[in-house]
Amino acid sequence: MHKVIFDTDPGVDDAMALLFLHQHPEIDLIGITTVFGNASVETTTRNALFLKREWQIDAPVAKGIPETFDPARAHAAWPTFVHGEDGLGNIGVPETIDLPIDPRPAHRFIIETVHAHPGEVTLIAVGRMTNLARALKEDPGIIGLVKAVIIMGGAFDTNGNVNPAAEANIHGDPEAADAVFTAAWPVTVVGLDVTTKTVMTRADLAAIVERGGARTQLLSDISQFYIDFYETRVPDGMLVHDSCACVYLVAPELFTIRKGAMRVVCGGIADGQTIQKPDDLGCGPSVWDGLPSQAACMEIDAPAVLKLVADTLARTGV
Amino acid sequence: MHKVIFDTDPGVDDAMALLFLHQHPEIDLIGITTVFGNASVETTTRNALFLKREWQIDAPVAKGIPETFDPARAHAAWPTFVHGEDGLGNIGVPETIDLPIDPRPAHRFIIETVHAHPGEVTLIAVGRMTNLARALKEDPGIIGLVKAVIIMGGAFDTNGNVNPAAEANIHGDPEAADAVFTAAWPVTVVGLDVTTKTVMTRADLAAIVERGGARTQLLSDISQFYIDFYETRVPDGMLVHDSCACVYLVAPELFTIRKGAMRVVCGGIADGQTIQKPDDLGCGPSVWDGLPSQAACMEIDAPAVLKLVADTLARTGV
Ligand SMILES: [Ca+2]
Ligand SMILES: [Ca+2]
Repeated sequence: MHKVIFDTDPGVDDAMALLFLHQHPEIDLIGITTVFGNASVETTTRNALFLKREWQIDAPVAKGIPETFDPARAHAAWPTFVHGEDGLGNIGVPETIDLPIDPRPAHRFIIETVHAHPGEVTLIAVGRMTNLARALKEDPGIIGLVKAVIIMGGAFDTNGNVNPAAEANIHGDPEAADAVFTAAWPVTVVGLDVTTKTVMTRADLAAIVERGGARTQLLSDISQFYIDFYETRVPDGMLVHDSCACVYLVAPELFTIRKGAMRVVCGGIADGQTIQKPDDLGCGPSVWDGLPSQAACMEIDAPAVLKLVADTLARTGV
Repeated sequence: MHKVIFDTDPGVDDAMALLFLHQHPEIDLIGITTVFGNASVETTTRNALFLKREWQIDAPVAKGIPETFDPARAHAAWPTFVHGEDGLGNIGVPETIDLPIDPRPAHRFIIETVHAHPGEVTLIAVGRMTNLARALKEDPGIIGLVKAVIIMGGAFDTNGNVNPAAEANIHGDPEAADAVFTAAWPVTVVGLDVTTKTVMTRADLAAIVERGGARTQLLSDISQFYIDFYETRVPDGMLVHDSCACVYLVAPELFTIRKGAMRVVCGGIADGQTIQKPDDLGCGPSVWDGLPSQAACMEIDAPAVLKLVADTLARTGV
C-alpha cells in the first residue's frame, strides 16, 4: 500500500484525482492538505470537506496558509472561468460543510505525518507548491524521510497554459516550486508535456458514470463546466491533469521519464517556467550544476492512463 | 537569384555557411557584415577578410560595432574552446589581411544596401543579432523593405547549448534578438530544435574535400578543432548550425515551421531563452499578444540538408 498525502486545490480535475486516490486498491490516503490556486484556500478547503463527505473519505483535511512562499508576490484573480465560482463547476456546493478540520496548518500536518511514518509517505501535490515549500523550510529534516514527491505542474519541452512560458500550478508560486524541485528528495514532475495528451471525452465520462453510480455522477456534474471551458482547447473533453500524477504512483511504467536538475524561473516574462538540465546535456556551466537530478515525464501511454483512471473511478463498493 | 547580406561571426560553422552562400547557384551574396560572438569583432572581421581572399568572394565586408545592443550587458569570454584562439580552428590565420574593408559600420551597410534594393534583400544572420537590431533602431524604415530575415539561433522546444535555457547567438545579445523577433518583418528562426540533428561526420567532410578541392581542404582544416570539441556532444562529427539557415533560403521545403509570436527572455536564469507562442496555443493574455507571427523551424529533413550542403560545398569552377 502506498501511503499518500494529497496536496490539492479542488478544483475539478483535483476532484477526479481525489476519487482516484480514494478508490485505488493500492493507495492508502492518509491526509488531504489544501492550497489556494483554482480558488481561495477557504473555497478549496470547503470543497475538500464537501468531497470527503460525499465520497465517505476517512482522511483528515488540513488547510494551507493563504500566502505565497514569497509573500511579496502579487495576487492574481482566481480562474473562475475554468473551475467555476465555487471551484467545482458551479454545481452549488453548500457554503459550509459541517465536518471537523485538522487543527494544524497544512505544512505542519505534512511535517508531523511524515515524521510519524518515516520513509513511507508519498506527497502528491497537484496545486501550487506552497505547502510543500513551507514544510521544507520549517523542517528540512523531512527531506530524508519522504518516500517520494510527485507533482502535477510545469512544462518542459512544450508551452505553458497560463501563458506561453508557464503552467498554472508553477506560475502561481514559482519560488515555492523552485524550492521543491531543488531539494534532495526524489521528485517526479508530471507536467503539460504529458497531461495535454490525456483527453477524457464526455462520452468517456458518461461511460464511467454508467458503471460507477452516484460518486461518479457527482464527478460528472462537477466536470461539465470544465469541459465547456476546454472546448476551445480540446474537442469535447477535458484534460485529466491531476489524475496523471496519481496514476504515476501506481503505474510509472506508463510514463517515460527524463532525469536532470530542474529550476523554476522567478520573475520576468518567463516567470514560473520550468527548465530542466537533462543529465546528458552538453552545455556550459550553469545554475543547474550540482542540484539533485529529478524526473520529468516526457512521454505517456495516454490510452492506458485514461483506462486506468476510468476503471478506478468506476469501482463500486469501495 | 536571392540577394543576401550575410551577418556572421566566423567562426567555424560560419565559414562553412559562407562557402555555401558563395557557391550556391541561386544565391547572390552582396555583403558580409561581421559581429562579435565566436571571437571579438576584430578577429571575426579579419577572418571574414581571410575567407574572402582565400575563396575569391566579391562581396564587401563591413565591420560591426563592438558593443551589445544594451551596452550595460556584461561581457563574457570568447568561446575559444569551440572555435579556437583565432576563431577558425587554430589554423594560423595571418594577423592582418591586406584587403579593403567597407567604410561603413555593419548596421549602416545593412540599412543602405536594403534601401538600394527595396524588397529584394534577405538578411541571413548567424551570429548575435546586434547589427540587425542596431539597423532596426537607426532606421525602422527598413522593416518594410527587407525581403526576409533568416537567423540561426535559439531553442524553442529543446534545451540551449550555453546553458539549459539559452542558445549561444541569442544568449550573447538577448535584447537585440528580442528587437529582431518582434519587428514586423518576416523572420524565420533556424535554431537548436533542428540544427542539432545535422551531424556532418569526419568521413562526410573528407568526401566533400575529395570532390571539392582546395577551397574545401581549407574548410576541412578549419573544422578539425571544432569537431574535436564536439566529440563530447556528437560522435565523430560537427553540427552545421549556420549552414542550416542558408539552406532554408533555397530549400525551405526541407523544414517544418511553426508560426507564432516570439520573445526573448532578458535577465534571470533563463536569460537569452527564446519562447514562441504558437498561433494555435490556448492560454491566457500575455506579452506575446499582438506581436507579429514569425516562423520557428521545428522539424528538418537532416539527410537532405546535409546532402545539399555537401553538394554545394563540393562544386568546383564557381
Ligand atoms: Ca489542481
Ligand atoms: Ca555563427
